[in-house]
This record gives sequence, C-alpha cells and structure tokens, in this order.
Amino acid sequence: MRRLKAVISYDGTQFSGFQVQPGERTIQAELERVLAVMHKGENIKVTASGRTDAKVHATGQTVHFDTPLTIPPEKYMKAFNVQLPKDIRVLTVEEVSTDFHARYSVSGKRYRYIWCCEPVQSPFRRYYTVETNGIVPNVNAMQEAAQAIIGTHDFSCFCAANTSVKDKVRTVASLKFEWHGQELHMIIEGNGFLYNMVRIIAGTLWEVGIGRRDITNVAHVIATMDRGQAGKTAPPQGLYLEKVFYPEVADV
Amino acid sequence: MRRLKAVISYDGTQFSGFQVQPGERTIQAELERVLAVMHKGENIKVTASGRTDAKVHATGQTVHFDTPLTIPPEKYMKAFNVQLPKDIRVLTVEEVSTDFHARYSVSGKRYRYIWCCEPVQSPFRRYYTVETNGIVPNVNAMQEAAQAIIGTHDFSCFCAANTSVKDKVRTVASLKFEWHGQELHMIIEGNGFLYNMVRIIAGTLWEVGIGRRDITNVAHVIATMDRGQAGKTAPPQGLYLEKVFYPEVADV
Repeated sequence: MRRLKAVISYDGTQFSGFQVQPGERTIQAELERVLAVMHKGENIKVTASGRTDAKVHATGQTVHFDTPLTIPPEKYMKAFNVQLPKDIRVLTVEEVSTDFHARYSVSGKRYRYIWCCEPVQSPFRRYYTVETNGIVPNVNAMQEAAQAIIGTHDFSCFCAANTSVKDKVRTVASLKFEWHGQELHMIIEGNGFLYNMVRIIAGTLWEVGIGRRDITNVAHVIATMDRGQAGKTAPPQGLYLEKVFYPEVADV
Repeated sequence: MRRLKAVISYDGTQFSGFQVQPGERTIQAELERVLAVMHKGENIKVTASGRTDAKVHATGQTVHFDTPLTIPPEKYMKAFNVQLPKDIRVLTVEEVSTDFHARYSVSGKRYRYIWCCEPVQSPFRRYYTVETNGIVPNVNAMQEAAQAIIGTHDFSCFCAANTSVKDKVRTVASLKFEWHGQELHMIIEGNGFLYNMVRIIAGTLWEVGIGRRDITNVAHVIATMDRGQAGKTAPPQGLYLEKVFYPEVADV
C-alpha cells in the first residue's frame, strides 16, 4: 500500500462540512466517491487534518489516503479534478511515507477570517465574507486585545461547549489583522485549534472592535476558562482553513 | 410622478437573466416584486440600460422607475437592500429628470470579461470566471488583433443571429487586456453593444490568443459582416456589465 497526501481547496457554501454524514453533501463523501470509482468500487477512506463545519471554506486543507494502485500522483490529481464537483479542487497530490498522518502529524495550522465592511456588501462576496452592515471596527483595539491570545494558554473559553477534547492547552503563534480594500482579514496561526476556536476568537475580538468589550477584558476571559465569558461564535462563511503545516516529511 | 435612477450590482449565477420571464427567477422580477411591496401592490415597471443573459453579472447595471411616493432616494436604497435577495444589491438611488431614460439616454457602456488561467481553477471562481484549463494565451496577439475592432464598424459579424436590430454600426472606444494575478481581464468600452457582441468578441480574440486564428483575420471577419466567420460565443459567467454612461443629467 502507498500513502498519498493531497492538498485541497473547497468552497464550503454548498457542503454540510467535511465529514461524512448520512444523507448530507460533504467533502469527504465526494472525495471517497471518486476514489471508489478509481478503485473499482473499493472503499478508500480519506483522513483530513481536521473537520471543517458547514459553509466553512478551505484553500489548503490536507488529507491522506492509502491505495494499492501504482498510478503516479499527478494522474491522481487529474482524475480527481475531472470527477469531483467544481466546488472541490485538488491542488497537489504526492506520495508520502506511511508514517505521515494528515491529522496526527500536524504541527500547525493557519486560518483566515474575513469581514466585509463595505456600506453595501458586494453580491459576489455574500458566501465568502461576513457582512458588517457598513460598520468599520477599531482594528488597533482588536490587534491590541489579540496580544492576550497569542502564546500558550488553556483556551477552554474559546471552545464550543459540546466537545470531548480534554486537554485545551494550545499555542497561538501569531494573530494579526490586515485590510484588503474594505475587507478586514484576521490571520491566525497556531499548533492546533479547538472546536470553533477561531470563530469564537473572531466573535470576541469583533466585540472589542465595535467597543462592546474592553481590550483588557480578553485576558480575563481566558483566565476564567469559561465559554460563557467569550463572545459569540462568528458566522461560518467568513472562515478559511488556509494552510496545514507538517514537519518536513521525506519523500518516498 | 418622480423618476428614480438606481445603480445595481448582481451575481447572475442564479438568475435566468435580467428580463422578466414567466416562471423564471430574474433580476427585473425581483426588483419589481420589492417595488410592489413598497407601493401596496401597485405594479411599478423597472427599465434597465439593457438586458443581461442568464449567468451574466453586473457591477454597475443602471435602471429607472417612476413612483408617486415621496420617500427620499436613500430610504429607497435601504428598503431595496433589506427586501432584495443578497445576490442583487442596490448601490445608489437618485432622483432624476423625467427626461432621463435608463435605456434611451445611454451614451456608453463598459464590460469586463474574465478568464481564469490558473492550472487548477479556484473553486471560489467557478461562477465568476471562465476556466481555460491552465492554457495561458498570447495576450500581445489578442491586443494586436483588437486594434481592428476599435473604432466605428458594422459589427454584424459579432452579433447573435437571432436579433431584430437593423442598424449594426457601433463604436468601440477602447478594448484592452489586463492581468490580475493569473486571471486575464478584457475591458471593452463603446457607445453600444449588439446582442452577445462582447461574448463573441471575447471568443474570437481568445482564438487569436491560442493561435487558432491569425491576428490579421479579425479585420477580414468584420468586413464580411458574417456571424459565421467570427469565433464562438464565450461562456456567460465570465461577463460583467461594469458601468453605464449617460450624458451629465441635471439633478431634480
């Protein structure tokens, strides 16, 4: 068996998230459907770096799967892109050591969150940004509040309540804001993220940006380890899984 | 009665074009549905600068309508944007003289046509660009061929066969190409455009760009006045109506 690693991009708008769910359109189900065709009906399981929720996008999600076939990785890529729906694209496929695991080998991830602060949101951006109804936040305040998040903390306060993960200590390596025209991007990188963590951070910092929460409150929220103290979970369509980092893997 | 002029933007993906058609989702029908609500059921007709086809986009379509109501234009704009679906947005509303006519007063239009030349088309661009499967055309050749189009000509060769318009003389004021990353934009401005004219020009110049048609052939095609001599009609999702020009209109 060979192990192949693929980097994929998807428009999450019309998906019920990454993971297979009976009766739902999911990214994993589409990938496995195509693999089953390539493998004459055999089930080939796809493992991702982690799940993404309904409507959440990815420009650099990473998956692996094992195959008995010997066709070259670039032919796999072409076959995927011919047979997949156009809202999922496979950007690269490469053979990796069987020690590589799309989820367990992750050393870090980068996410992006986008708000559209135009007075009237472009119709072309309705599924790809969160509309602020023309509100322009104080980004300096958001950036200052973000300093409390950077570093290693127990992030229970930024984790959706319905999670089974026990250890909620994670390291946020960087968290910065950028304007792209009238769209505000939050770019966050870390060694791992809890369920809904990026969206809850976005929702909390947004409240700082519009003056509904003090800059100094964010350190306090982290210290309480209480989800109830943080802000709302920001909507899914603003979120992009941009890159998954792995330690250097020797090619096979 | 007051006359109001509105500039609107729409994502054409989920519309059967601008004009009302029974049983179809159209931009005109959505605008008139909202106006009927505002006018307690009265039918208010919306007139556009011209139609756009199914899947064709607009970032600056212009319309007018007459109303007996005296509510201020900016309140109209808000009411539209609250009640319209998010794939149509009203960017401006202003009161104009009743001499103004969204179609008959047009002095010019600007369209944009976008090809995505990335090796793998981004899933986020599938409804908004035309995929070239990684083919990168010779833009210098396209620009050189375009010189034959600029100016005043009988453009019968670039007009869909099923049209009732008799006078096919139009003036193309400018036609230029620009790279935006790996996306190629064709921007064309003129005093008026025949049915499918921009898409047939795009399809013809594309053939020049990939070496399937000589640069010098384009002047010949125009001279024949024969639609059969020109290239294919390029797909609708690459096309944007970007701006409609009017002679300076005195505000009321």
